[in-house]
Amino acid sequence: MSHREAALKFHKDHQGKVATELRAPITDKETLGLAYTPGVAQACLEIEKDPQTAYDYTWKSRTIAVISDGTAVLGLGDIGPMASLPVMEGKCNLLKSFGGVDAVPIVLDEKDPEKLIQIIKALAPTFGGINLEDISAPRCIQIERTLIEELDIPVFHDDQHGTAIVVTAGLINALKLIGKSFEALKVVVSGVGAAGSSIIRMLYQVGVRDIYGFNRNGVLNRDKLEQADFLQKELIEITNPSNEDVTLEQAMVKADVFIGVSAGNIVSEAMVASMNENAVVFALANPEPEITYELAKKAGARVVVTGRSDAPNQVNNVLVFPGLFKGALASRATKITDEMKLAAAYGLASLITENQLNEEYVIPEVFDSRVADVVAKAVMDEVERQQTQN
Amino acid sequence: MSHREAALKFHKDHQGKVATELRAPITDKETLGLAYTPGVAQACLEIEKDPQTAYDYTWKSRTIAVISDGTAVLGLGDIGPMASLPVMEGKCNLLKSFGGVDAVPIVLDEKDPEKLIQIIKALAPTFGGINLEDISAPRCIQIERTLIEELDIPVFHDDQHGTAIVVTAGLINALKLIGKSFEALKVVVSGVGAAGSSIIRMLYQVGVRDIYGFNRNGVLNRDKLEQADFLQKELIEITNPSNEDVTLEQAMVKADVFIGVSAGNIVSEAMVASMNENAVVFALANPEPEITYELAKKAGARVVVTGRSDAPNQVNNVLVFPGLFKGALASRATKITDEMKLAAAYGLASLITENQLNEEYVIPEVFDSRVADVVAKAVMDEVERQQTQN
Repeated sequence: MSHREAALKFHKDHQGKVATELRAPITDKETLGLAYTPGVAQACLEIEKDPQTAYDYTWKSRTIAVISDGTAVLGLGDIGPMASLPVMEGKCNLLKSFGGVDAVPIVLDEKDPEKLIQIIKALAPTFGGINLEDISAPRCIQIERTLIEELDIPVFHDDQHGTAIVVTAGLINALKLIGKSFEALKVVVSGVGAAGSSIIRMLYQVGVRDIYGFNRNGVLNRDKLEQADFLQKELIEITNPSNEDVTLEQAMVKADVFIGVSAGNIVSEAMVASMNENAVVFALANPEPEITYELAKKAGARVVVTGRSDAPNQVNNVLVFPGLFKGALASRATKITDEMKLAAAYGLASLITENQLNEEYVIPEVFDSRVADVVAKAVMDEVERQQTQN
Repeated sequence: MSHREAALKFHKDHQGKVATELRAPITDKETLGLAYTPGVAQACLEIEKDPQTAYDYTWKSRTIAVISDGTAVLGLGDIGPMASLPVMEGKCNLLKSFGGVDAVPIVLDEKDPEKLIQIIKALAPTFGGINLEDISAPRCIQIERTLIEELDIPVFHDDQHGTAIVVTAGLINALKLIGKSFEALKVVVSGVGAAGSSIIRMLYQVGVRDIYGFNRNGVLNRDKLEQADFLQKELIEITNPSNEDVTLEQAMVKADVFIGVSAGNIVSEAMVASMNENAVVFALANPEPEITYELAKKAGARVVVTGRSDAPNQVNNVLVFPGLFKGALASRATKITDEMKLAAAYGLASLITENQLNEEYVIPEVFDSRVADVVAKAVMDEVERQQTQN
């Protein structure tokens, strides 16, 4: 049986990957009277009086929605909401398998960003948090920002920040190996969509100033402000400080870090060889990375990170989102702030001790059972710190 | 501990009443590769090619949404979406406990009927069916009709039709006892909102012609067409054939059946005593019925039905919706037709054999474990009959 056939059989055998489960099956009159009429009215009245008690009397305190419009699904593109449902179910499964978080897949037959925002706002009372997924850029950024602003539950677009958090964690550890600070780095980022833009912002947040962002039209710089969309404009503000007009090949010369979230096979061995000593390469395009683990190592990179499970140092968002939502729900955070994301990155990085740290182990393993709890704890500590400050 | 305290404790102990469950926990690399990337893409591509395969590869074939806007919750009225969540969770629990149907509670922060329709349409790809719940009348009727028209999955507003189906089942059995036909009946219905209007339509469907419908402004008749809303106009068409202007008290004289879905204590013993011999009384207002079981019996009613679990013949919608959705999902029905509802009523009624049938047992018990399967089977047989006809 091919892997394709095995995957289809797996999905068919289980008719999807999540189900609903009973916290307390209603099997007798007494339970019916407590869980449904007339008893349920008491819970309704309490919540009507004090909406916060919904966290006590309903699933809200432990349940999030995984929401997509199906416009940017994996590498498949705009395949529509129903065809994206298997991915959302998979994500929900991961949230529960790894983080113990109840999650409901929701796919929406709507593409207009304003209407998507309205729909998701209308859904919000049902859930304790919202994970946006596979929504095309730059729409996803506008949608996420508006929802963060207008809702009082955590909203997180994993395609943007999940990758950024794992990359930052990997870079935190790589810098320990090569003995450099964020401020000293020259970083080249290929791909400035959902993930790339969040990576650039997070690197800026930790102190990196010498960043070059590339898309299909070349490097971001001030000369391109006019034809830039709102997202590119923001990135131009915090990248390319000398306003250079360079090719990817030119920018790579003497760079310390390359981060690719773009397309396969666009980085040559020569380009890696032209980087600074102790170069760090994140080649995250899927399934074909910008350069393979082996070629990047051969070309002299000290640390190489990919998105593939068949090489060391795999960037996989599952290292973040289950623990992040677990922590955010447990601390009743109303938003996921930049500081919480950074705390998650430092928490994740901290799992690898100084003794264990090496070129092939800067990012924890996906099935390391400590991951979700360490990330959750880091997030909760940060929420507590923020609350103490206020 | 009071019942109120016990109900709140029950809700708090369980943090709500439903959860998500894993069909296949992702605990190793192989499962991750089948259930998520890269394997999941195969399921996505199949569904993109043929949307019907979503019923094979996702939870769609076994999962419905229980959706409310919180505008008409139990007897509590418009308490808002979040305060209605415990009821929706309870309903989801019942769907799974009784019918094995996976169900997800969704409460919507939106009251405009057009926008509610848009939102629910956008949600539809996620689910195999939609149960509308606790939406105020007459908005609920417009919303349900539009969704039935425009969606290709079953949509069912339980507050309208659930009660109507159980009442019809009870009446089918009561008529066996008293030896009358639907066509021969004079029926008085008090309450012409969500439930009352569906009851009247279903009775009309089975042949009852002499029906009087009452709301707070008295009997429905043609003289009131001008100030009537669209729903009342429809009911005026099929009730009160001689266009009488009667009080409830006057209408009850020589009536065979009284059906109350209105308010407590509005029917006196004298009114019941004025009915025909072998009178059948459905006093379904909750928690206080239009007349108590005991008083109605004392006044001479032959069969008395209430909504209370502490009297015989309890009308409880849980006798219908789990089996109805189980059958509709199993037969991949795209709509719940009037014929399917009627089939459910006859199926439910059939559970009581001629030998068992008596004045105190015209409606099956809520915890009769045969109910959901018999209703599901009746619905599936009807779907098959419709498909064979076409």
